[in-house]
Amino acid sequence: MKLDQFLKVERKTTVAVPFPEDDAILKTCKTAADQDWASFLFIGNPETIEKAAANTGLKPGSYKCEKAENETEACALTARYIKEGKAQVAMKGQVHTGEFSRALFSKDAGLLEPGRLVSHMALCQVASYHKLLFLTDCAINIRPDYADKLRILDNAVDLAKRLGISRPKVGLVAPVETVNPKIDSTTDAEKLRREYDPQKALLGGPFGLDVALSAEAARIKKIESPVAGDVDILLFPELNSGNAVYKTLTVLAGATIAGLLIGLQAPVVLTSRADNAETKLLSLKLGLASV
Amino acid sequence: MKLDQFLKVERKTTVAVPFPEDDAILKTCKTAADQDWASFLFIGNPETIEKAAANTGLKPGSYKCEKAENETEACALTARYIKEGKAQVAMKGQVHTGEFSRALFSKDAGLLEPGRLVSHMALCQVASYHKLLFLTDCAINIRPDYADKLRILDNAVDLAKRLGISRPKVGLVAPVETVNPKIDSTTDAEKLRREYDPQKALLGGPFGLDVALSAEAARIKKIESPVAGDVDILLFPELNSGNAVYKTLTVLAGATIAGLLIGLQAPVVLTSRADNAETKLLSLKLGLASV
Repeated sequence: MKLDQFLKVERKTTVAVPFPEDDAILKTCKTAADQDWASFLFIGNPETIEKAAANTGLKPGSYKCEKAENETEACALTARYIKEGKAQVAMKGQVHTGEFSRALFSKDAGLLEPGRLVSHMALCQVASYHKLLFLTDCAINIRPDYADKLRILDNAVDLAKRLGISRPKVGLVAPVETVNPKIDSTTDAEKLRREYDPQKALLGGPFGLDVALSAEAARIKKIESPVAGDVDILLFPELNSGNAVYKTLTVLAGATIAGLLIGLQAPVVLTSRADNAETKLLSLKLGLASV
Repeated sequence: MKLDQFLKVERKTTVAVPFPEDDAILKTCKTAADQDWASFLFIGNPETIEKAAANTGLKPGSYKCEKAENETEACALTARYIKEGKAQVAMKGQVHTGEFSRALFSKDAGLLEPGRLVSHMALCQVASYHKLLFLTDCAINIRPDYADKLRILDNAVDLAKRLGISRPKVGLVAPVETVNPKIDSTTDAEKLRREYDPQKALLGGPFGLDVALSAEAARIKKIESPVAGDVDILLFPELNSGNAVYKTLTVLAGATIAGLLIGLQAPVVLTSRADNAETKLLSLKLGLASV
């Protein structure tokens, strides 16, 4: 399955972008506008925005501008427009990640419902695996405790469902399949597997990544689980491992990847400078498809 | 560079194997004996060993047998023969990993010098990277502290040197390149980089795996370091990430891989049931090449 075909934008929505005057960002917006997936609410200095948009070839009808004096105000307005329903997706423009995140994640912004947390979800297409693969959390939560893992899992299962996978198979990643009290990833995995609602998702683990991704490895290790070798979602125990696998897949396994922040009232597209144009566009499409 | 060509067995040594009567293990021994890389000291029941060895086609002159009543005794004898210099490499046979490890790693065995620790090193050949890649620790140390990381690094640098890489480039793996007091992997990486003897190895980091492995990613992220994009060794912050990347490389990136336990008086070959024949043989060759 191609990632691009899997993601279906079902209705046109509005994307709020603070300080969009960056060539790569505006090109991504132009492609989305040309496909009729989205219209844009650009926030910053209307004059410079309009000039940059015209240079990129973005049609005037595909966006509106709202004035903001500086980054802080532009990020705060982004959060407010989401809260008020004027935009359904937020995308980081040419602003600092810290500033952008603080504005959207803060309690004042009111975009985070009680009992939830913001997590990162990557969606990956790699030739060596027979399905698309969701990975979480590869970017935000440093060392989630059990309660955090439960919320990260809820976010992931909810997103998978919005994208059409109603009861995803989740592999709970650890270095080994046996529960070892010295290894948190194994004890938390066992607890999650026992306690998570099986109607929402089918959990397997603790699993080494070989068992999670290869039915042959599971057979050799005598692991019997419908999840082993067939996972839709990999839940990582902490940031070090999630981030390292994410980057291994892009740099060494030729993966095509999209990423999104989830758990807020609206999806947040926050691509990295090092992401290529395809990843930037797919990440926006992932956000639009999950509304 | 092919892993198989890189590893050069320079002198014939003796490998001690407790309970070798396993088809995959004996085939590995046969290939090594046929190449004249090693002779074997098999420990267990001489009758059953000789029968199994004959079935595999192992030439009688390529091995000796020593009697042991049970697993515990066979593992203890393995450690003793290493200590006495009768064998220079240990390889796990058909015995439990726990039993084997306890016998070799215990203080009584005397194979661990003061101030050292046992760590795992993987050596990986992957088409998408321009060098062979050492990964550590992917199998043993769960959550090494700073002092442990220093010892794991010493083990790795020492092994690389034995294999002909006199001043390896080491990438200190973390999720980000900026030092963040909330993320141990970044603070430990910075301390290692400052304190490690630059004559022994060239350290770079904290590095995300993209920066460690891709000069292009380093350029985009404006990281200037001779190590970025050109690492020989990846030092992982803990087992979850090292193990997950190791398995991602084998399952999803088509890597050829060899593994070894180092830090003891002799290298220890401890392959997993799920390893294929190529990995088993390359792991033994890695052990023999590093004596």
